[in-house]
Amino acid sequence: MAPSFLTQTYTERAKVNNNACAKKLLELMDKKKTNLSVAIDVTKKADIIRIADILGPYICVLKTHIDIVEDFDMELVETLKKLAEKHEFLIFEDRKFADIGNTVKHQYEGGVYKIASWSDITNAHPIPGEGIIKGLKEVGLPLNRALLLLAEMSSKGSLAKGQYTLDTIEMAKRNTDFVIGFIGQNRIYDNGDDSQDFLYLTPGVGLETKGDSLGQQYRTPHQVIVESGCDIIIVGRGVYGAKDDAEIKERAEKYRKAGWDAYLERIGQNQ
Amino acid sequence: MAPSFLTQTYTERAKVNNNACAKKLLELMDKKKTNLSVAIDVTKKADIIRIADILGPYICVLKTHIDIVEDFDMELVETLKKLAEKHEFLIFEDRKFADIGNTVKHQYEGGVYKIASWSDITNAHPIPGEGIIKGLKEVGLPLNRALLLLAEMSSKGSLAKGQYTLDTIEMAKRNTDFVIGFIGQNRIYDNGDDSQDFLYLTPGVGLETKGDSLGQQYRTPHQVIVESGCDIIIVGRGVYGAKDDAEIKERAEKYRKAGWDAYLERIGQNQ
Repeated sequence: MAPSFLTQTYTERAKVNNNACAKKLLELMDKKKTNLSVAIDVTKKADIIRIADILGPYICVLKTHIDIVEDFDMELVETLKKLAEKHEFLIFEDRKFADIGNTVKHQYEGGVYKIASWSDITNAHPIPGEGIIKGLKEVGLPLNRALLLLAEMSSKGSLAKGQYTLDTIEMAKRNTDFVIGFIGQNRIYDNGDDSQDFLYLTPGVGLETKGDSLGQQYRTPHQVIVESGCDIIIVGRGVYGAKDDAEIKERAEKYRKAGWDAYLERIGQNQ
Repeated sequence: MAPSFLTQTYTERAKVNNNACAKKLLELMDKKKTNLSVAIDVTKKADIIRIADILGPYICVLKTHIDIVEDFDMELVETLKKLAEKHEFLIFEDRKFADIGNTVKHQYEGGVYKIASWSDITNAHPIPGEGIIKGLKEVGLPLNRALLLLAEMSSKGSLAKGQYTLDTIEMAKRNTDFVIGFIGQNRIYDNGDDSQDFLYLTPGVGLETKGDSLGQQYRTPHQVIVESGCDIIIVGRGVYGAKDDAEIKERAEKYRKAGWDAYLERIGQNQ
């Protein structure tokens, strides 16, 4: 039996979600009519700010890789926080934490980037065991942050599959106060038990491209939202890799509409 | 049949290793009589420099978590490079890269930390598939850097086990120009095929401690080097978490000797 989440609106799902960050996200998605997240992988502060301001109206989540920014400073994240407020989107630092609990605590809270101080959502590989969740939770939960676990990856030859993915779901179920969902390619039905409403954010989404030479592979919004039952499409260079600002807007709108139409089809509200 | 590496000296193994970084490491281990690596997880620049200078004579590898340092700047890594030259040790930034190839390239080369410019060795989780190795190799190989893959982890409930570990070994075998070995708890015999001489670096080593509340677990140098056939012991707070500099030296020497005695026993040169 398919879980009821698949045919509910994001607003209906927000009502029963007990994580403040997930609730806020689900509500703004319906309000702004978008399930689009853009992964902004550029290396100059000024470009990030300019692109984030252009994309603001079209996205629910801005995904960052803060550690590729050449001229990073705390002013960058202060500006991003203001843009997030202005346009109503959440910030998701795609840090892919992957160390033991005691180390990730420091990496999340401290260092140069102080990720926990500005990023609403971050993510982690479950590979070190549940200690990684506990470590991050000690820092993030008091700040109303949320965590996604990497259950699957879209890259070629990924080892996140099979039992690994199922073990990831089990870890998440034991930590639903902080873990709000997954980075994954498919909603996992887990022997029919889908009692917990997790969010699925799916990278590797493209309307035209086929992949790159370093193993990245792409799927369409329809495949991701309708066929695979995921919730948010993550698009990267397919949106911001445009010739000018007007074309970035155009592409953002094209992806927003494709993701939203797929969602309407899934919940039975199309046409 | 046990592989011959287990009873060879590090110098003998250096002669047949074709990675410049691994060769240098194996040679300095025999020269300095140490297979000890210290994981230096402190958050102040001045402490790192002070401790690294104290530890220098006792270690073959200084393991860093550069992204927990509150007052990081490039002067820190310049100083560490000078200490590495003065004391003859290698620097290993324990970044645990875990993203797709195109992203890790930027994370390794750029951002605030510019890891590839100062860290002899770094490591990666194989989970995204082989693209992660290719991405890192494009940056690191021209700089004579080397990569370790995380084949196993010492933390409780780790998902790096079984087929995952075997798949990791296979990826390494296809990339022996850049992948010099593993972070792991045991030398993997892989159905008897041990034709490639990989280095095994093993964290979670302690002489007295039992673990921490966030899932870290400990084993002794003898277990790691003799019973499990690994090459380098990684010790953390067990060494630098001492009351003063004299006690840090004393603990470093105790761990160095324990690791070295275990190695001599393994190669049959004890007493």
